[in-house]
Formats: sequence, C-alpha cells, structure tokens
Amino acid sequence: MSAGAPKTAAVIGLGLIGGSFARSAKAAGLRVIGVDVSAVARRAALEAGVADEVSDSAAAVAGADEVFVATPVGAFASVFAELAGSVREDAAVFDGGSCKREAMRAAEALGARRPRFVPSHPIAGHEDSGFEASSADLFKDRWAVLCPEGAAPDAIETTAAAWRRCGAKIAEMTAESHDEIFAAVSHLPHLLSFALVEALRARKNRETILRYAAGGFRDFTRIAGSDPVMWADVCIQNADCLLAACGDFRRELENFEDLVRAGDREALREKFAAARALRRRGEKKQLEAGEGGA
Amino acid sequence: MSAGAPKTAAVIGLGLIGGSFARSAKAAGLRVIGVDVSAVARRAALEAGVADEVSDSAAAVAGADEVFVATPVGAFASVFAELAGSVREDAAVFDGGSCKREAMRAAEALGARRPRFVPSHPIAGHEDSGFEASSADLFKDRWAVLCPEGAAPDAIETTAAAWRRCGAKIAEMTAESHDEIFAAVSHLPHLLSFALVEALRARKNRETILRYAAGGFRDFTRIAGSDPVMWADVCIQNADCLLAACGDFRRELENFEDLVRAGDREALREKFAAARALRRRGEKKQLEAGEGGA
Repeated sequence: MSAGAPKTAAVIGLGLIGGSFARSAKAAGLRVIGVDVSAVARRAALEAGVADEVSDSAAAVAGADEVFVATPVGAFASVFAELAGSVREDAAVFDGGSCKREAMRAAEALGARRPRFVPSHPIAGHEDSGFEASSADLFKDRWAVLCPEGAAPDAIETTAAAWRRCGAKIAEMTAESHDEIFAAVSHLPHLLSFALVEALRARKNRETILRYAAGGFRDFTRIAGSDPVMWADVCIQNADCLLAACGDFRRELENFEDLVRAGDREALREKFAAARALRRRGEKKQLEAGEGGA
Repeated sequence: MSAGAPKTAAVIGLGLIGGSFARSAKAAGLRVIGVDVSAVARRAALEAGVADEVSDSAAAVAGADEVFVATPVGAFASVFAELAGSVREDAAVFDGGSCKREAMRAAEALGARRPRFVPSHPIAGHEDSGFEASSADLFKDRWAVLCPEGAAPDAIETTAAAWRRCGAKIAEMTAESHDEIFAAVSHLPHLLSFALVEALRARKNRETILRYAAGGFRDFTRIAGSDPVMWADVCIQNADCLLAACGDFRRELENFEDLVRAGDREALREKFAAARALRRRGEKKQLEAGEGGA
C-alpha cells in the first residue's frame, strides 16, 4: 500500500453479513472491493456505492489490507484455496461463519498464508438475508468473537480493529468453546424453531392454528424464517455440539412431559420458577452489557 | 338494575388480565366492582381509580350485569360455587382462562346459574403479571375466543359485547377445538421455552452462555419469564392436548437430529425451507388480520 492511500477492505460474499461489513467499511472511508459469484449482488453493491470495485473472483483481493470471507461456510474451502495464491502476505483474513472449528479446518487450504487467518464470528443477524437486508450498523454494540489460535499477532490486531470499526465489542475464546456455546444459544434455538413449525405443518388444522398463533408462538418461530441453506450447513458443521445440546434439551423436555403426565403441579411450578429466575437474570445481564444481537 | 344507572362489571381476580379488563370497563363508563383475595391488589385497583368498590368475596357481585372471572384457573371451582349463590339470574358470567374444557367442568359448580356462563379466552398476555402490568388496551385488536356451548343466548351476547368493548375481535369454537389449538400455539411454546432455559440452567458454563445469548435465544425464552404458577396449572389442566402436541414436536425434533447425525444437508434444507415458507405465510396472515397477541 502506498503511503497516504486509503486502506482497502475486500469482502467476499455480499449477503447480509458481508454487505453490512462493506457498508460500515465504506462509511469509515475505506476503499472496498466486493466479490460475489452473483452478478445481481455485485451490481447492487456498486449501485449502492458500497463497493468501489467488484469481481467474481477472490483473485481481486490482491491489493487488500483486510479480507473478510462472508460466503456460506460451505464455500470456505474453495475460497481459501483461491486466497492462498492471491492474498497479500501482510493482510489479515477473517471470516464471519457460525462454526469456528469448521472455519479453521477450511483455512488449512490457505497453506503458507494460514497465520494470516483469524476465525471470527459477529453475533448479529436477521431473519431476512441478502445484500438488500444489510445495514452499516448491524454489528453495533454486538459481540465479535475471535478464535485467534495459530494466527499472527498483527493479523489478530487488524481483525479486531476491523470489528471495532463496525462498532462491535471483541471477545476471544477457543474454537471449541465457541462452537459449544453457540450450539446452545443459537444453533439449538434455530433447530427447535424449525421443528416447531414443521410439526405444525404436518397438522390438518394448520391454517386454523396459524390464525390464532399468539405472541409466544410468533417469537418462538421468528428464527424459522432464517436462511434454510445457511442453517442446514451450520447444523451439519457443528453437528457434535448441536446434538449434545439438543440431547440435553430433549431430556429436559421429556422430564417436563413426565411431570405433566403425573399431574405434578408442584414440581412444574418449581422448575418454571427456576427457569424464569435464570431467564430474568440473563436479561438483566444483557441489558447491563448493552447487548443487541439476533 | 334501575333505569339510567350505569352498567356494572364485577371483576374477580385483579391481576394482569382482570386488571386490564377492569381498566377498559372503567374507561367505557361502567361501574366496576373489584374482587381479589389480596388486599394489596384491592388497594391498587381502588387507588388507580379502576374499581369503584372492592371486596374479598365473590358475594360482592350481587348487583353486577357482567361478572368476569380472572382468577388462576385453579380457583375456578370455589369461585363458581360462591357465584352460584350470589350472581344475578340475568347476569353474564365469563372467564379468561387458558383451558376451556377445564373452565366448563368447574362451571358445573354454578348449578342453576350454569346457562349464564360463557367460557371465554382473550388471546393476550404479557410475561409480566399482576395488576401493575395491566393496561386498558391489552385486548385491543386481539381475539376473544368464546366457547358458548350450553350458554343462554343473552349471556353470550353480553359476553361478546364486553369483549368488543375492550377492542377485541370475537371468534367462536368448541372447548375441544380451543384446547387443541392453544396447546399447539401457546401451551407447547411455553413448555419448550421453560425446558430450554432449564436445560441451560443445568450447565456448568451457563453464565458464559448467558453472556453470549443472541436474539434467537432471547426471543425463544422471553415467555420463560411468564408466571410459573399459572403455567404449571395450564399444563396440567390441558395435559392431554399438550402432551399430544409435545409428542408431535418431539418426534419432529428427533427426525431433525437423525438428519443432522446422518449429515443429510439436502433433507434439512428442504425441511427448513418448508418451515420458513409456512412461517412467513403465517406472518402475512396475521398482518392481514391486524393481529397483536402475546
């Protein structure tokens, strides 16, 4: 980079997450290179003034100081293989995927550039997907989790600075911890939400039921509006942690069913009261931390 | 009632639902008699100007044109037994409970006054409970479901008019249909939400997990903040319908777990896409119907 030239961010994958990152980079005065296999997404990013330059190839990142990989995780291996031959040796590469062990596995394809890679996960999202749903403040006051094992210190600093520029707060943890925690707080709730709507879909009276669907049902199933392709990938990539969390949940549910069947009002009250107390404590914690999140 | 005197509504149970009904009746110019076993609730209703008169006994309803029973369902049998000897023979009695077959069973205690009873269920609520959470517009644009089997036509009309006065829309169905539908759209989501938080509570790393709880988790567990006593009662009173809906859900979840275990990305995508389509259709339906609900 010549002295005085603006920093350049390359964003591979111009969907909700990549588009939002690009908007935020642009707003901070960076030069933005947008890469997407979809001509529609590329045109949208150019027309919105969010990308200064677009390409359908990861080779376009050759001049970038930072490279954000925001494609579906299923595309990581091939994207990283392309980056191995095109990314600058002093650039930082980071992703936005929901499964950090999977991202680290895929990043082996970076070869000699592997130390430039910092797995990262911004804890933000929306049930709408695509560039048209992106916004510059999607990451504001949200966590950006970094799993920096095996990364060069300056790459970690560049990655953390990029997320801070988006307004995010930085947390560091191992990829194993990340995958276990997010199986419990994100991947399992998504699976339950999809399962609840699927169970409804099998019913003959589903139209009547939808008519009377109350707030609890609506809240509960909002995330069933999420991108099916992305979530199928997440479930399979984080299968071990997800199945463990799901098994714990299912055993708790079976326990509740037993109590309902036995008419054990007192035990149900105690469990519901304990759940309410924890839930309210969590709410307070998030309020204190100034959390958003989706 | 003497000609020209304002109509009188008696409200038994001055919690969230009863308090909101009383506020709406007062706002419409009715005279309101508030009945509650709690002196704190009675004083709050008097001081808020929501009740003109309060009592700890259902005998106070003797002069009322309409009697709304908004106690926990567990108290219905004893309340109805008191009402049998005190309610006017031309008054309408209706409840706000979540289980209509249970309300009908309890209403047998009304004896000769049984035809005055119209089981009703306003589809509104809030995770906060108690008189202090009540508001005059809680029922605005929500459904009020009536299960009018066995009720006198004029009692049905008085009940429907009372709910319309609160801004609610009237739907009629059998108590059986009601309990099946609301097991699926309300009681099951509450049980799942409590179970998810309970499963989290059992974990050693629950504090870390709460710290990163994202929007999906928060939406999903909001209703775990609901009143534990009321929900334990609901689960047990509607046990058969709830267990049937829960069994359907659990089988769907086990099916999802099998697909995750097998790494069957394609089948998961199809199921998630179908769930999303139904969920979005339901959302549209509710938007068109101008629904709120909780």
